[in-house]
Amino acid sequence: MKTYRIRDEIVQYRFGEPLNTHSVVLDGKAIEKRELDYFQFKAADSNFQLQYKMDKEDIVWGLGENQRGMNKRGGIYVSYCMDDPHHTPDKKSLYGAHNFFVVDGTESFGIYIDFPGRVTFDVGFSHKDVLSIELVGKDADLYIIKGVNLAQIVRNFLMLIGKSYVPPKWAFGYQQSRWSYPDRKTVEEIAESFESYDMPCDAIYLDIDYMESYKNFTIDKEKFPNFQQFVENMKERGLRLIPIIDAGVKIDEGYKVYDEGIEKGYFCTDQNGKPFVGAVWPGRVHFPDFLNPEARKWFGEKYRELTDYGIEGFWNDMNEPAIFYTKRGLDHAIQQAKDSENTNLDIHSFFSLQEAFIGLSNHLKDYQSFYHDIEGKKVNHNQVHNLYGYYMTKAAAEGLEEINPNKRFLLFSRASSIGMHRYGGIWTGDNHSWWEHILLNLKMLPSLNMCGFLYIGADTGGFSGDTNAQMLIRWMQLSLFTPLFRNHSAMGTRQQEPFAFDEESVDIMRGLLQLRYKCIPYIYSEYMKAALKGDMYFAPLAFAYSDKISRRIEDQLLVGESLMIAPIYEENAVGRTVWLPEEMLLWYFESDEGEKYRILPQGFHYIEGNLDRPYIFIRKNKLFLMGNSGKNVEELNAEILHIIGFIPEQGSYFYYDDDGMSKDYLKGIHDELNIIIENKKDGYSIQVEKNGNPEVKEIQFEIVNGWGTLEKKTVQIF
Amino acid sequence: MKTYRIRDEIVQYRFGEPLNTHSVVLDGKAIEKRELDYFQFKAADSNFQLQYKMDKEDIVWGLGENQRGMNKRGGIYVSYCMDDPHHTPDKKSLYGAHNFFVVDGTESFGIYIDFPGRVTFDVGFSHKDVLSIELVGKDADLYIIKGVNLAQIVRNFLMLIGKSYVPPKWAFGYQQSRWSYPDRKTVEEIAESFESYDMPCDAIYLDIDYMESYKNFTIDKEKFPNFQQFVENMKERGLRLIPIIDAGVKIDEGYKVYDEGIEKGYFCTDQNGKPFVGAVWPGRVHFPDFLNPEARKWFGEKYRELTDYGIEGFWNDMNEPAIFYTKRGLDHAIQQAKDSENTNLDIHSFFSLQEAFIGLSNHLKDYQSFYHDIEGKKVNHNQVHNLYGYYMTKAAAEGLEEINPNKRFLLFSRASSIGMHRYGGIWTGDNHSWWEHILLNLKMLPSLNMCGFLYIGADTGGFSGDTNAQMLIRWMQLSLFTPLFRNHSAMGTRQQEPFAFDEESVDIMRGLLQLRYKCIPYIYSEYMKAALKGDMYFAPLAFAYSDKISRRIEDQLLVGESLMIAPIYEENAVGRTVWLPEEMLLWYFESDEGEKYRILPQGFHYIEGNLDRPYIFIRKNKLFLMGNSGKNVEELNAEILHIIGFIPEQGSYFYYDDDGMSKDYLKGIHDELNIIIENKKDGYSIQVEKNGNPEVKEIQFEIVNGWGTLEKKTVQIF
Repeated sequence: MKTYRIRDEIVQYRFGEPLNTHSVVLDGKAIEKRELDYFQFKAADSNFQLQYKMDKEDIVWGLGENQRGMNKRGGIYVSYCMDDPHHTPDKKSLYGAHNFFVVDGTESFGIYIDFPGRVTFDVGFSHKDVLSIELVGKDADLYIIKGVNLAQIVRNFLMLIGKSYVPPKWAFGYQQSRWSYPDRKTVEEIAESFESYDMPCDAIYLDIDYMESYKNFTIDKEKFPNFQQFVENMKERGLRLIPIIDAGVKIDEGYKVYDEGIEKGYFCTDQNGKPFVGAVWPGRVHFPDFLNPEARKWFGEKYRELTDYGIEGFWNDMNEPAIFYTKRGLDHAIQQAKDSENTNLDIHSFFSLQEAFIGLSNHLKDYQSFYHDIEGKKVNHNQVHNLYGYYMTKAAAEGLEEINPNKRFLLFSRASSIGMHRYGGIWTGDNHSWWEHILLNLKMLPSLNMCGFLYIGADTGGFSGDTNAQMLIRWMQLSLFTPLFRNHSAMGTRQQEPFAFDEESVDIMRGLLQLRYKCIPYIYSEYMKAALKGDMYFAPLAFAYSDKISRRIEDQLLVGESLMIAPIYEENAVGRTVWLPEEMLLWYFESDEGEKYRILPQGFHYIEGNLDRPYIFIRKNKLFLMGNSGKNVEELNAEILHIIGFIPEQGSYFYYDDDGMSKDYLKGIHDELNIIIENKKDGYSIQVEKNGNPEVKEIQFEIVNGWGTLEKKTVQIF
Repeated sequence: MKTYRIRDEIVQYRFGEPLNTHSVVLDGKAIEKRELDYFQFKAADSNFQLQYKMDKEDIVWGLGENQRGMNKRGGIYVSYCMDDPHHTPDKKSLYGAHNFFVVDGTESFGIYIDFPGRVTFDVGFSHKDVLSIELVGKDADLYIIKGVNLAQIVRNFLMLIGKSYVPPKWAFGYQQSRWSYPDRKTVEEIAESFESYDMPCDAIYLDIDYMESYKNFTIDKEKFPNFQQFVENMKERGLRLIPIIDAGVKIDEGYKVYDEGIEKGYFCTDQNGKPFVGAVWPGRVHFPDFLNPEARKWFGEKYRELTDYGIEGFWNDMNEPAIFYTKRGLDHAIQQAKDSENTNLDIHSFFSLQEAFIGLSNHLKDYQSFYHDIEGKKVNHNQVHNLYGYYMTKAAAEGLEEINPNKRFLLFSRASSIGMHRYGGIWTGDNHSWWEHILLNLKMLPSLNMCGFLYIGADTGGFSGDTNAQMLIRWMQLSLFTPLFRNHSAMGTRQQEPFAFDEESVDIMRGLLQLRYKCIPYIYSEYMKAALKGDMYFAPLAFAYSDKISRRIEDQLLVGESLMIAPIYEENAVGRTVWLPEEMLLWYFESDEGEKYRILPQGFHYIEGNLDRPYIFIRKNKLFLMGNSGKNVEELNAEILHIIGFIPEQGSYFYYDDDGMSKDYLKGIHDELNIIIENKKDGYSIQVEKNGNPEVKEIQFEIVNGWGTLEKKTVQIF
């Protein structure tokens, strides 16, 4: 073990000779240190184990995209990126591998396992007080991260792994997807519906069927004729098209990507050095070796095929990589079927036969049977499995940077591991239209933020299965604040667009979409500050409040610095209980009937929340910003800002904005307003200081004081 | 349509010539009535549909064993008994077909669809305000049931379908199961563990492996040598053995049950009149035709094989009936596999191949391909599918009645439909070790009670998958009050017995088991009163309180007349919010540290509930009874009764007890105490009137008055 000091709060422990995953951006200086802090270390022949004895009250935060609570205690989690479309509560691996968590108790610290192979976290499952981590391998970097409090531990970690990806501003608009809108005509009809229903929207997605035979970087010209003109037309209507890119490249002579990949040796190879064959959507494919820098560059440049049409955003899919089957597995299963013919299968042989077919996909044996070329060394895929999606997205990001260096593209991925957060966002994969998945969505958000992923969101309404109007409305009430707000659903399920339901529900959904656009000034400002400062956008209450109850609340979130949300996620509920760690302002967005706002003291409260009455909580002495709605993000009129504040004493807000398109923000180029407000004896004093050239010309304040009196003020910005 | 008046509140509508399912026990008189109340009726060629326009605030209660909320609004439910071991939130059919529900709103009424085929209930899923019911068939009895309130509507329905099954009293003790305790030695070790850990227990289950090659009514003599002596020994230790009985009969010449069934023609037949072949645990089987009274009698008498060994309880399984595969499906799948060999399966053909194997079990085509002999008429199974489990259990109950007419046997089933509630209980099938399934368990309880099923419980700890100590403890805190309290888990999962965890958790579980036994006087008294009066044992709050919030509470239950429970069902929670529709007494069972009780006013309250601090709520002016713990139910000392009351004014309790073994209770033979307590100026006046010969000699009262003062009193019973 070698030890390095990165910062006072960060120590790196190096075991063996780990591969550089490039997930960490800071270097350290060698120091003398014999023992790992906190953990007992146990090495075996081919792996090693860490153990930590938890105190009864310890909470464990983090681990990104995973099942169970925000507090991960009680579960087993396996970091091994997995295309598993059944997100039942017992699943140990989803699409991401996010090896960072924080222990929060008598001892508080974070640990990051920088290791690209399989890692198992048993967080008090086998024994309630034992946290154990097992790595399949012996070469790894461990980082122990300290800080004065939870938020600071996470900030220190985010500093270690570098700044998060920033999408273009239009990507904070609403986005509509389906597997699949099968042709140009359907996409155009969807666009028309958004217009005729007066629902704002920024993007429509193209799932796998836009391609010719599922071949990456091709267009099915029959179903999508005149693609360039189509892209342009849609953009004139204010809508961007977002095509999917899959990891696998169809084996098809004459198909350029295939031919080039073969010619240049850019595909992963089998043990004989031949391109490895798996089967995914197109049938048999090869997998680009994204871990080879040359292959990565080559694949990244292929995105130009689509950007040349005017495409400005992509979602990278199937990059765990998903493998539906291989010849190995299929031959074996078919043989077992043949052997079973005309026999009286007893129940064991029957289940074994069934399992041979059920278990074909994403088989460990297949992952163990192909190789990457890493600096001339043949590395078995299984050892670096969790880097594959990360490096595919890195390939895309670097390619897009090449294509247009100062332009922000929308880019997100299904598979991920820490490090990828610098190159793109993620969506949380193929969830279900289950009420339980609204809550799971909520719980994942801060956990992902802790691991660096800021541009995130789930398939609103649920991907698999059928939603109903009520479920979609409740889900939208949560997605109102997720940076990525996309509605996506699977083939064979009910139409899930916000206009596909009864009139009353459609009216409510229209209101929610318009509300989203009104909230974009706040969402964008908070997102950008989190991205630039290396902070979280969503946080559990425990990150700001240390009382005993706040530590245990897992169905409310802090959003940015001013808001707390407590969405309803139960069918037929007309309200819910909410914990207020301090006095807050309950604010109903829709106020045609009933109260508009109420100050609530610390404590539990039952909050009425009919479907048509979304609400937020504004924290004490904080300000919340809203703009107007519009057809899409670009058409938002930013001249008038509406600020709602709950200011018993005084508060301030730093409003961030920028061009939303370029990477100039990295040079510090942006617009800002510094708003300071003070409740004085003779009323509120408001100061607004401007830097750069914010578009805002006027701010309309609605300020509630400690007695519940609302005061309106308008301030002109010169 | 013919119409009959059953009672003032119950009208029967007869469509076509329905089969008598014997689910209803009351006859009516023909009346003139042209139109169905409440529903729009629409007949098509081969089915009919009913539609009801729901008001916005309408709640729909009932439908027994199903997914989603107590309020069924928002979902689609299909009554078609199904062995589906993945109880994900989108499943439309579980093991039971419980066609009764209550609409609760501006109009309040119940409806029972007495029909043994497939029924689909779309309760505001397709359109939020439309409730539609579709029957696949044209012959059915519909009953519309009214009443002055929800509870009375249900009581009227329970009167219509007759009194619920009553198990022996020992069946209210804790019961331990696993698939499987593989041999006598293991069962004996389990028994020893209960003794050495000082954990009370009444029964240990024998899952399928006790049989010889999964043949019903046989014993594997190698693994369970000297079975009679084994049963006796266990009984001397205070433990009963409960064997499983499956529906399918192994095809095996020389096996008596098979030979007799063939000889007498008691098996379901295929379209050529030959015994229908399916495959289940033993491989190929025939299915007894339980709808044929002679076959039913024959099968019922077979239980004697086991009662002769001293067995006193059974669980009937696989009686949907589950069919793992048939030759039809398997041949088709194998052929598809052979056709796929050496082809480049595209993704559609690959998924189709996989589906051919995944979809082998419980296939509609198979259910449509066999027949029952009903009064000489060949009836396709699909048309009467939902009667199969019901009639298997009726067969068992009638057989056991024959064997010992005045003895209560323990009997419950997996598949069920309404009518079966008179013959046995149910367990809710193969759930998972998911936190979500604790809540689902809770929600099903009152829904099942509404449909007549009183002796019910889920696999505590979860059947499939791995529990952890905390989950099992929380689940036990709910099961504390379920009439059937059984811990059962699947092959390949973690050992789940209450002594299989860390010491601290084991201590907590011991406490919970002992607590269960202390609660048996109350549980049994309330169960018997519900069974005899035709009432519910578990009820939603809305059945007793009509305030707006109580109507929406779906995670609390009324248990009997005195208690409200609000269990914790979230991982790592240390408390929860609870709605009190009126002032109640919070009572912690364990009081080594902290408070023992507190009066809480109407409203929402956050209740602390660490793992080791189970609590209940005692309703105002109600009394709760406890006895002492003991090794098992028979050893409970009933001489001292402990009564906890919350009596600001006055209250009474009717305590019911009986011999717990015989059916004499049906003749009105039982023991009772009528306890009346009044808070007078000079203290409590307590009257106890006795009938029969209750064993109770002394009652120790702990009464809390409206000011929170606890008074202790002891009353001797002469």
